[in-house]
Amino acid sequence: MKPYVFGVDLGGTTVKIGFFQSNGELIEKWEIPTRAYNHGANLLPDIAQALLGKLTEKSISVEEVEGVGLGVPGAVLPDGYVKPCVNLDQWGGFYAAQELSELCHCPVKLVNDANAAALGEMYWGGGKGYRNVVFVTLGTGVGGGIILNGKLLTGVHGAGGEIGHMKVAEADDVICGCGKSGCLEQYSSATGLVNRAKRLLSEQNMDTRLRSMENLTCKDIFDCAKEGDPAAAQLVDDMSRMLGKALANVACVCDPEIVVIGGGVARAGDILLQGIREQFAAHAFPATLETKFALAELGNDAGIYGASQMILNEKL
Amino acid sequence: MKPYVFGVDLGGTTVKIGFFQSNGELIEKWEIPTRAYNHGANLLPDIAQALLGKLTEKSISVEEVEGVGLGVPGAVLPDGYVKPCVNLDQWGGFYAAQELSELCHCPVKLVNDANAAALGEMYWGGGKGYRNVVFVTLGTGVGGGIILNGKLLTGVHGAGGEIGHMKVAEADDVICGCGKSGCLEQYSSATGLVNRAKRLLSEQNMDTRLRSMENLTCKDIFDCAKEGDPAAAQLVDDMSRMLGKALANVACVCDPEIVVIGGGVARAGDILLQGIREQFAAHAFPATLETKFALAELGNDAGIYGASQMILNEKL
Repeated sequence: MKPYVFGVDLGGTTVKIGFFQSNGELIEKWEIPTRAYNHGANLLPDIAQALLGKLTEKSISVEEVEGVGLGVPGAVLPDGYVKPCVNLDQWGGFYAAQELSELCHCPVKLVNDANAAALGEMYWGGGKGYRNVVFVTLGTGVGGGIILNGKLLTGVHGAGGEIGHMKVAEADDVICGCGKSGCLEQYSSATGLVNRAKRLLSEQNMDTRLRSMENLTCKDIFDCAKEGDPAAAQLVDDMSRMLGKALANVACVCDPEIVVIGGGVARAGDILLQGIREQFAAHAFPATLETKFALAELGNDAGIYGASQMILNEKL
Repeated sequence: MKPYVFGVDLGGTTVKIGFFQSNGELIEKWEIPTRAYNHGANLLPDIAQALLGKLTEKSISVEEVEGVGLGVPGAVLPDGYVKPCVNLDQWGGFYAAQELSELCHCPVKLVNDANAAALGEMYWGGGKGYRNVVFVTLGTGVGGGIILNGKLLTGVHGAGGEIGHMKVAEADDVICGCGKSGCLEQYSSATGLVNRAKRLLSEQNMDTRLRSMENLTCKDIFDCAKEGDPAAAQLVDDMSRMLGKALANVACVCDPEIVVIGGGVARAGDILLQGIREQFAAHAFPATLETKFALAELGNDAGIYGASQMILNEKL
């Protein structure tokens, strides 16, 4: 194997780039802005320029680069086709690996961003040492990535691990981004939690510190719950219940060794993890009760680490 | 490869045995009674005797047999350990492949029975031509087997594909065999459907033909539903709804090409399949809406066909 690889995480706001040694160690990381407008016409040229510029800066030839792993915020089909990405002005609808490969003069492999983060956490983070990992990211939405026997479960339509859209409640009037209702994402994402809090405050007359907060955030709700505010505690309980129950169902399907919880909401830490564990235990099929739970460790770097594995690990 | 293999399906009442050519074609099939008492002490000797007797009868040497695939009604761990099987007087708790191999003088590979049936249906039945299959068997319980990229998803604790124990309803007073409540099995198995019918009849005063039937069966309920009986139609609708919704969640996790429905209940045919399709469509994550649905085709032979594949297919 050649001595270097790139791991790139193409997000809605920034492109995170990691330059790695072929033993997986990070040499340098940086970000460039995501210029998504005009259906993302600049995205791949911007990335190519950043990568080639870094090589020039370091006097490294592209011949010494094994390849580029690129994580994208959308579905990647088994043949490498990227579906149009909502967060990138509908960029996609083509075989992006081939195009970036021509711009960079080295091999490129694509991966969905949540799947990349799952790989990163398995190799270097909360799932280190395991080969059967369910990764859940709780942020604006609820994303997921599943790795079985060290291989990504991408799914036939690129929807493998899309656990944010599992139905955890009866249909109601809160419509999810996917067009359906009752999705886990509406209960257990940061956005979902805040929306549910606002609804609770408007519908009920409870005495709660949440009422005094302007621009209520997910962190506020967890902070208040930790301090014993009953409304906040109820909201956090509901969130954990939905997540624990959904993960019990995930375990009935793919029976992993460990569930790694990441994303901004995971910064709530043990209060979240404990609630999920309890609710998982209450609903899980007995054979899966030994499933472990851990918090993610790589934060925003999970994506670049995981994307680099697409090149470093031939089996992926 | 040697010219012959055996595929064996060890069930609670009978052991089904198939003698196959190495191209996968069935030469002969037969059954022997399952003598499960005394923790199943006779099971493997009985099977070995049946296999070796068949070879003697046909003047075939055991040297000409590539191996034996054995499906068992319980969890098989990745290392070949069989957990104790409820339906076999707690037979299990050891490495059964090794023991049968010594009795038969040829290699043995184990597989969970629902996983074996999934393999059989993928190679020769309702899932033929596909490599990413979710198989659901609706009978006394709800079993499942999942195949991704042609490989079984067995799970770390042998619980991969145990979709009968996904939670589809809030906890209630009907306790599932697994010890929890709200499991799919309580709604969509033959047993679950009949129990729910009896409950409906005792709790409500509806005018329905079901009331006149002694020893109400699952088939009665489907027959009455087809004839327009409103109570039966409601029961069948509920069953399809739970199953369609659970399968929508399964698709969010593992995103297959096709779902194959088997087991005794599947004999209800199109009325069942149509209900499941509608409910799946109502709940599915949009990317998975193209998932296909089919009825199983091999009936009780799925297990022996699938078990034979454990030997015929080196990748399994």
